[in-house]
Amino acid sequence: MILFRLSSAVSLGTMKSIFYSRFFILLPWILIVIIVIDIDTKRSSVRNTASFYFSRLGNVQQRQDARTTRTSSVSSSSRAGSNITSPPVIFAITPTYSRAVQKAELTRLANTFRQVPQFHWIVVEDSNSHTELVSRFLARSGLRYTHLNVFTPRRFKRKGMPRATEQRNAALGWLRGHRTSKDKGVVFFADDDNTYSLELFEEMRSTRRVAVWPVGLVGGRRYERPLVENGKVVGWYTGWRADRPFAIDMAGFAVNLQVILSNPRAMFKRRGAKPGMQESDFLKQITKVEDLEPKARNCTQVLVWHTRTEKVILGNEPKRQQDSLYIEV
Amino acid sequence: MILFRLSSAVSLGTMKSIFYSRFFILLPWILIVIIVIDIDTKRSSVRNTASFYFSRLGNVQQRQDARTTRTSSVSSSSRAGSNITSPPVIFAITPTYSRAVQKAELTRLANTFRQVPQFHWIVVEDSNSHTELVSRFLARSGLRYTHLNVFTPRRFKRKGMPRATEQRNAALGWLRGHRTSKDKGVVFFADDDNTYSLELFEEMRSTRRVAVWPVGLVGGRRYERPLVENGKVVGWYTGWRADRPFAIDMAGFAVNLQVILSNPRAMFKRRGAKPGMQESDFLKQITKVEDLEPKARNCTQVLVWHTRTEKVILGNEPKRQQDSLYIEV
Repeated sequence: MILFRLSSAVSLGTMKSIFYSRFFILLPWILIVIIVIDIDTKRSSVRNTASFYFSRLGNVQQRQDARTTRTSSVSSSSRAGSNITSPPVIFAITPTYSRAVQKAELTRLANTFRQVPQFHWIVVEDSNSHTELVSRFLARSGLRYTHLNVFTPRRFKRKGMPRATEQRNAALGWLRGHRTSKDKGVVFFADDDNTYSLELFEEMRSTRRVAVWPVGLVGGRRYERPLVENGKVVGWYTGWRADRPFAIDMAGFAVNLQVILSNPRAMFKRRGAKPGMQESDFLKQITKVEDLEPKARNCTQVLVWHTRTEKVILGNEPKRQQDSLYIEV
Repeated sequence: MILFRLSSAVSLGTMKSIFYSRFFILLPWILIVIIVIDIDTKRSSVRNTASFYFSRLGNVQQRQDARTTRTSSVSSSSRAGSNITSPPVIFAITPTYSRAVQKAELTRLANTFRQVPQFHWIVVEDSNSHTELVSRFLARSGLRYTHLNVFTPRRFKRKGMPRATEQRNAALGWLRGHRTSKDKGVVFFADDDNTYSLELFEEMRSTRRVAVWPVGLVGGRRYERPLVENGKVVGWYTGWRADRPFAIDMAGFAVNLQVILSNPRAMFKRRGAKPGMQESDFLKQITKVEDLEPKARNCTQVLVWHTRTEKVILGNEPKRQQDSLYIEV
């Protein structure tokens, strides 16, 4: 229509000038179309590149989030909102207590956890208050964390007694108080001296109810593992108390957050509990063997090791402070 | 000029048509100018964003590099070229040997090292050939590495004998054969059961000749450390053999690559060496106490711990393979 009107306006001019006028009118429009098409192609490629880097940046982003979501003050709605698209958060519950190797153990744990995207560390101290060492350590860890404490009475700290019962229950209590049915998460009991591969966390992230996998260097064997047939757990490969309903170490299972929330009375028990039976006592409150979800290629890969760090003998430590200053170890 | 020609061509038309024609000629050109300016702004902002993510991606990038520079086949010139701007590479020498906890130890080491930028792991097995376990592990580690092996004869594996002497010397030999005076680097002896904070590597990276710092949980004390006065090492805080010229653990020092290259005969000795004297024997070949560079805030921070992992007792391991398949631990 534009061309028609213009050509009628120049109907008295020469053929040459008509050609020129049409050419100069068409040329810029063609250029505009070319440029716009070009921009669109570039934009989408830029978008793809950015999302590619974002996807590799999981842990770094998370560290940034950590600064704002460190405490439980984040509103439930904002968490639920972000959860619609993001993968479930892994809540790793780590009981810890004051000893010579504590900071070293926490250091290598944090070095591992820092590489796990969507990770929330629940550290529970066996103490009457937050210790300075753990508080300082967590604040500098770069991880999203919750710092709790509960003191285990001395009478429970005897050989043959289950350990860290109160600490694990405190963490479960925190989850029930601060997370809702809108939150997507997976809960894992990560003792502070075990060794964790990064693959383990990607395996457990898809836990729908309760997932299980092999654990290395446990029960006096190279590994223990659930025996799997047709995708179902049918028994246990173990060298110790094979009669346990769930013959599995604390590091060998994860539980979906919603299972923890919908079984508000499920917890670790002191009364009548024997060491080595804590896992079974807890799991039978929330699941059945036939419902377990085998991970790590049908329980044929060892992705976590029940390592134990030697107790340090400080035989040469001077009786009185000899160094000129106090150094945290 | 264009407008002039066209306006002369339409000189017989009405004022209205002249207005239209000029408008439709000018409009697209104006649009083009606006679009082009717009693109340029966006492009530069995209570039800035990308470089921002790149700068945070140090370790990931390095992992990508690793895939191409895994072997020593990289030409010396290309390495020297990149070194002009990049920080010195940290060469961590880790002797290792086959045992139940080996893969677990290597796993947590790799989890730490993966976060250290410009890092090159020299793993030396005490074996007659590369073991499958270590080869597979390193290939999947995402780290830049060199895999060596040298077998320590059984007669040297007695209590009271220094350990890993041959393995550390093999790594020094590799550096002398594959790095030149053009390469910037820092050499560190990273045993496979110690615990390393990430800060340690940033401290050692600026080593000009030989740097030292405290080590936690060593010598029967909470820590050992060099005593520093006016920026110089003047003695040692230690609970064990204070008469050692360098009363320091293997994890307590780093050496500039050029010092290793310019002292081609410096090595760890078996003949006449006592355990605990290896560090002193080595260091006195390349430096003097007064030339040591104190790191970690004048040797007042513990950034590395001499942790020891408990030997695993496999008392319940079946005598014959009982499981239906072989699982690597």
